[in-house]
Amino acid sequence: MTALIEELKTLVGAAHVLVDGDLSAYEVDWRKRAHGKALAVVRPGSTGEAAAVVRACAQAGVAMVPQGGNTGLVVGATPDESGTQVVLSLQRMTAVRELDAANMTVTVEAGCVLQSLQEHARNAGFLFPLSLAAEGSCTIGGNLATNAGGTQVLRYGNARDLCLGLEVVTPAGEVWDGLSGLRKDNTGYDLRDLFIGSEGTLGLITAATLKLYPLPAATLTAWAAVPSMQAAVQLLGLARRHLGAGLTGFEVMGQFALGLVARHFPQMRVPFVQDSPWCVLLENADHESEAHARGQFETLLERALEEGCVTDAVVAENIAQARQLWHVRESIPLAQAEEGLNIKHDISLPISRIPAYCEETDALLLREIAGVRLVNFGHLGDGNLHYNVQAPEGGDAATFLREREEAVNALVYDQVRRHGGSISAEHGVGSLKVDSLPDYKSPVALGMMRAIKGGLDPRNLMNPGRVVRP
Amino acid sequence: MTALIEELKTLVGAAHVLVDGDLSAYEVDWRKRAHGKALAVVRPGSTGEAAAVVRACAQAGVAMVPQGGNTGLVVGATPDESGTQVVLSLQRMTAVRELDAANMTVTVEAGCVLQSLQEHARNAGFLFPLSLAAEGSCTIGGNLATNAGGTQVLRYGNARDLCLGLEVVTPAGEVWDGLSGLRKDNTGYDLRDLFIGSEGTLGLITAATLKLYPLPAATLTAWAAVPSMQAAVQLLGLARRHLGAGLTGFEVMGQFALGLVARHFPQMRVPFVQDSPWCVLLENADHESEAHARGQFETLLERALEEGCVTDAVVAENIAQARQLWHVRESIPLAQAEEGLNIKHDISLPISRIPAYCEETDALLLREIAGVRLVNFGHLGDGNLHYNVQAPEGGDAATFLREREEAVNALVYDQVRRHGGSISAEHGVGSLKVDSLPDYKSPVALGMMRAIKGGLDPRNLMNPGRVVRP
Repeated sequence: MTALIEELKTLVGAAHVLVDGDLSAYEVDWRKRAHGKALAVVRPGSTGEAAAVVRACAQAGVAMVPQGGNTGLVVGATPDESGTQVVLSLQRMTAVRELDAANMTVTVEAGCVLQSLQEHARNAGFLFPLSLAAEGSCTIGGNLATNAGGTQVLRYGNARDLCLGLEVVTPAGEVWDGLSGLRKDNTGYDLRDLFIGSEGTLGLITAATLKLYPLPAATLTAWAAVPSMQAAVQLLGLARRHLGAGLTGFEVMGQFALGLVARHFPQMRVPFVQDSPWCVLLENADHESEAHARGQFETLLERALEEGCVTDAVVAENIAQARQLWHVRESIPLAQAEEGLNIKHDISLPISRIPAYCEETDALLLREIAGVRLVNFGHLGDGNLHYNVQAPEGGDAATFLREREEAVNALVYDQVRRHGGSISAEHGVGSLKVDSLPDYKSPVALGMMRAIKGGLDPRNLMNPGRVVRP
Repeated sequence: MTALIEELKTLVGAAHVLVDGDLSAYEVDWRKRAHGKALAVVRPGSTGEAAAVVRACAQAGVAMVPQGGNTGLVVGATPDESGTQVVLSLQRMTAVRELDAANMTVTVEAGCVLQSLQEHARNAGFLFPLSLAAEGSCTIGGNLATNAGGTQVLRYGNARDLCLGLEVVTPAGEVWDGLSGLRKDNTGYDLRDLFIGSEGTLGLITAATLKLYPLPAATLTAWAAVPSMQAAVQLLGLARRHLGAGLTGFEVMGQFALGLVARHFPQMRVPFVQDSPWCVLLENADHESEAHARGQFETLLERALEEGCVTDAVVAENIAQARQLWHVRESIPLAQAEEGLNIKHDISLPISRIPAYCEETDALLLREIAGVRLVNFGHLGDGNLHYNVQAPEGGDAATFLREREEAVNALVYDQVRRHGGSISAEHGVGSLKVDSLPDYKSPVALGMMRAIKGGLDPRNLMNPGRVVRP
């Protein structure tokens, strides 16, 4: 292995092959659940260097773990504990290669931080709509490798839907230049979408061409109290009809989740938390004017009040108020952490099944664990719930997790399967869910995934042990 | 083979295994370029029957050719001339299995005709936005297998973007039930998008779950005279900013193309055809009201007149006028046929490159062939041109095609490659382009395509000779 490390130093420079010192930023995952050990962390500075590094590793038969901002939630981008895997860090490849205003596209290297790209686009008068909690640290390459979701999916889709082309280093170290700025291209299999969401197991994404959108003229936020999850689903239908593509956000939050925010962050005002079992945050992005957006929101909310799916509502008066409302929504995970460890799920369901799912699963959990508390919130417009389970009031959270996590997961996921849902809506599989996936995924689908992995990475050197086992 | 045919009759009923009589509807392609001969045409009535048919053919080592409405333009769905291939016709599997209003999805069998699905959705108060010339005959399965485009791609995307889940019979005859109504699902490789656009070479699509949208409150159409292709690109940028997601159509048409319509269909009024080198048809679908849509259009067109990218414009006063304008656009291919045989291309380019592409390629063609006439029109909003080449005035079209087609294709496609475009934007590869694809596609991409084909269809029984050769 010494020979390989020397070769890697020749390829990218000794300063960019890390073997000593504290490498925990590369070896420990975001939620600190896995503590790996790398043979080396290699940071190529260009696509050519990245390809040379992959060829050298492949020749030595050494497994590689692609890594962007290392903000993933399913232990998909850190090395295992063996000390035999090379981390391929993209963090030096951050260039915006081209912004094509007439084509409304931007071509960017994989290591570019999401927030930098958002700002670059905004400075050119465009919106790059991908937006998620980790945007200050996560990278475009990681966003694409995991098909990231976030808060704007309802209107703009997942990371997949924002990507027109990719540049990829294959497991053999060849470069596929698929950096197309084309909106239509039917010349063969959709390799782009195969790499997107494959979590680095089929190759290394080094750059991407992404869609840009016009900046909206005004973005307004509203907060509505709704009497039930069924009413929230009804409000979603109304909002889609009244606001059309203007509806860019539709977040649902349960009373207990909002109560945790009110309890742990008493300086925040949480509208309607006392009286309403559910609240919904709506966002309306208008290409015309703020006045128009406000009129649209008012018409919608009046109609919803008449139909009884909303009991009360406020529309933010200005950007500061809108930010406060979003801040409440975004503070739920922190408030949960303040309350203590809990069992997290990132599930999706057909929207029509969500009310029944929640009612049944809440009841089953309460029957199993008296007093268990449900922190339920999520992107209702995408059918995506963060259906989290917190220990009973006063119970010991660590014990709860140790004793109950497996059974709770089984119950929650079995219900997901029964309602035609997914056990990973936006976080991916990684190594955390690789061994439970076969319980919830069709064996025919898994067989095809294995055939594809075998065809594209026959020696299983790219991020082994993630997504699918040979 | 007699034994196989007897077995197929047992599986689907003798009436649905066609071997005698006139089978040209299944054996000859839409443009009548290829006259094949099938071993048999089999019409399964259910997914179970389809899987049994595939298993029987696979066991006998017989190649299969999936077929929907047989409206494809690249000879991808008819059997070769050997008489050894079985056509799998989906035309009996037409059921709409479920329309889920709250989830805004519809699940439909592959043989359902596109227009039937559009009507089914409309009757339930929804829009299914896929729309193309062959919609009265083409099927959903074929639309997905070829990733069909059409006139609404600018707003709603290609067929790929409208699909959430698939049911597929694999080349071994297993059924993959991937009929998900989920908008987010990150549990492994994106098999859905791999099958979409694979033109029946990886498996047989038997059903799909598709997205629905709210019906717009009003749809308006405008027709603008623009002084150049560059001005058309500028108008597109303005329209995207002013109309946002309301902009559902943006079709560009050259003066010669429109002149053919005026010449061969003198009863049609073709606005501005005398005076303007290019015209643009714009469509604005509004979720609010017709008055709002009209106001938006007027603001946009005034601004465009001020900026000089539009020299004159009309907005249709009513639906009848709007239909007339679309009818002019849709009559271009017919007018071309009236004028005589011509060399057709379905290319895409980055939108920013289109003005230079047209200027250069027009000049190169005119240098090669004095008096050659260019019928240029297409979906500019998607970067998709139908850049067609017609014989010089008075020249013999058949001779022109025979003598010039190969050289013209090479010139047009070399220019496409030079400008980063695609030689097949929406029609696919089929058998028509399978052997020219390697000249225009990256060998790394082709290598990955072969690996995938080999992994999923190792015996090359599914639509062999299409898209990629082993």
